[in-house]
Amino acid sequence: MSRLKREQLISAALDLVDEEGAEALTMRSLAARVDRQVSSLYNHVGSRADLIEALRERIVSDIDTTCFDGRPWDAAIAAWAGSYLTAFAAHPHLIPLLATTPIRDASTLRMYETVVSALIDAGWPVRDAVAVMRTVEAHVLGSALDIVAPGDLLVQSSIPAELPALRAALDPTLGESAGASRAYQLGLAALLQGLRAAHAGATAA
Amino acid sequence: MSRLKREQLISAALDLVDEEGAEALTMRSLAARVDRQVSSLYNHVGSRADLIEALRERIVSDIDTTCFDGRPWDAAIAAWAGSYLTAFAAHPHLIPLLATTPIRDASTLRMYETVVSALIDAGWPVRDAVAVMRTVEAHVLGSALDIVAPGDLLVQSSIPAELPALRAALDPTLGESAGASRAYQLGLAALLQGLRAAHAGATAA
Repeated sequence: MSRLKREQLISAALDLVDEEGAEALTMRSLAARVDRQVSSLYNHVGSRADLIEALRERIVSDIDTTCFDGRPWDAAIAAWAGSYLTAFAAHPHLIPLLATTPIRDASTLRMYETVVSALIDAGWPVRDAVAVMRTVEAHVLGSALDIVAPGDLLVQSSIPAELPALRAALDPTLGESAGASRAYQLGLAALLQGLRAAHAGATAA
Repeated sequence: MSRLKREQLISAALDLVDEEGAEALTMRSLAARVDRQVSSLYNHVGSRADLIEALRERIVSDIDTTCFDGRPWDAAIAAWAGSYLTAFAAHPHLIPLLATTPIRDASTLRMYETVVSALIDAGWPVRDAVAVMRTVEAHVLGSALDIVAPGDLLVQSSIPAELPALRAALDPTLGESAGASRAYQLGLAALLQGLRAAHAGATAA
């Protein structure tokens, strides 16, 4: 049996979460998956919490932060949000797991430093910078759950006749207008517009 | 043994999901929890999918839609979002489950009819009504995951000195300004402001 490498173990953990959900991730289930004793896992990760942070590091490595190099803050946030959405939509079971565990991974904190620095440099008050970043993340993660849903959650054919407004709004001839991706785009554009207004107010004050 | 009532079964399913997560919800695990044979559950629910829709009905019954009676659309959406957040924050494991399964529950569809009707009556184009509703839901659900996280995900004491902007933005003397609840409020206000601008554009066109 070849020596188990840490990166292989993290990949196996990601596969396990992708296939069976976050609650299926235990040191025991992971050991079974890589055909090792539980004790041997501790050569690579100190705990399940460590493993979760390693998964965070893996997914954050797919998020582009080069958009913060020189672009206006709102364009940079829009690009970052798109990259963030793509990264998490590929691993939706990680969304509730990573959204609800304390963040210790160094690469994630460096990403946040990049975002918060850019916001403060653009004139956002220090006290607002984390909230702005955090609400964009929440918007993206909620939208990612909607986008990854199999099929579509709401289709006209399942709406009874006594709900005429909903039926009309889900008319298939409207194309993708009622779909999750378009809702995300419409919402992100609105969120950014509102944030631009708040930014203008804060920098004028 | 007393006769099992459907509402008791749904309550047991909700407790199971609250305690062990969505993936733990199977007909077998639920039968064990209520000390019945799996076959007897089928007197009350036809399938696991039925059970999920019953959980959706239960949680939607906690969401207030009376706010759509006569208030301006944006104030109504803000009130609905707050009620929606409270309902799901009480049962966070339901968020990924209900966000990714097709919606068949009649009470949920009636709620959507109320929201979509109000938006269309207020002048929103029919093709935008579902997207507006849906992006508010995504914003709320992503924020709810952030708000229910135990402790806080990001605290200054865990940020190394080489990330000075993030450390400054997480200064505890700024109070709750970097917290999840304030991020939600800031984001919802921005989202609604952007939606009001889009609505003004659409109704002027």
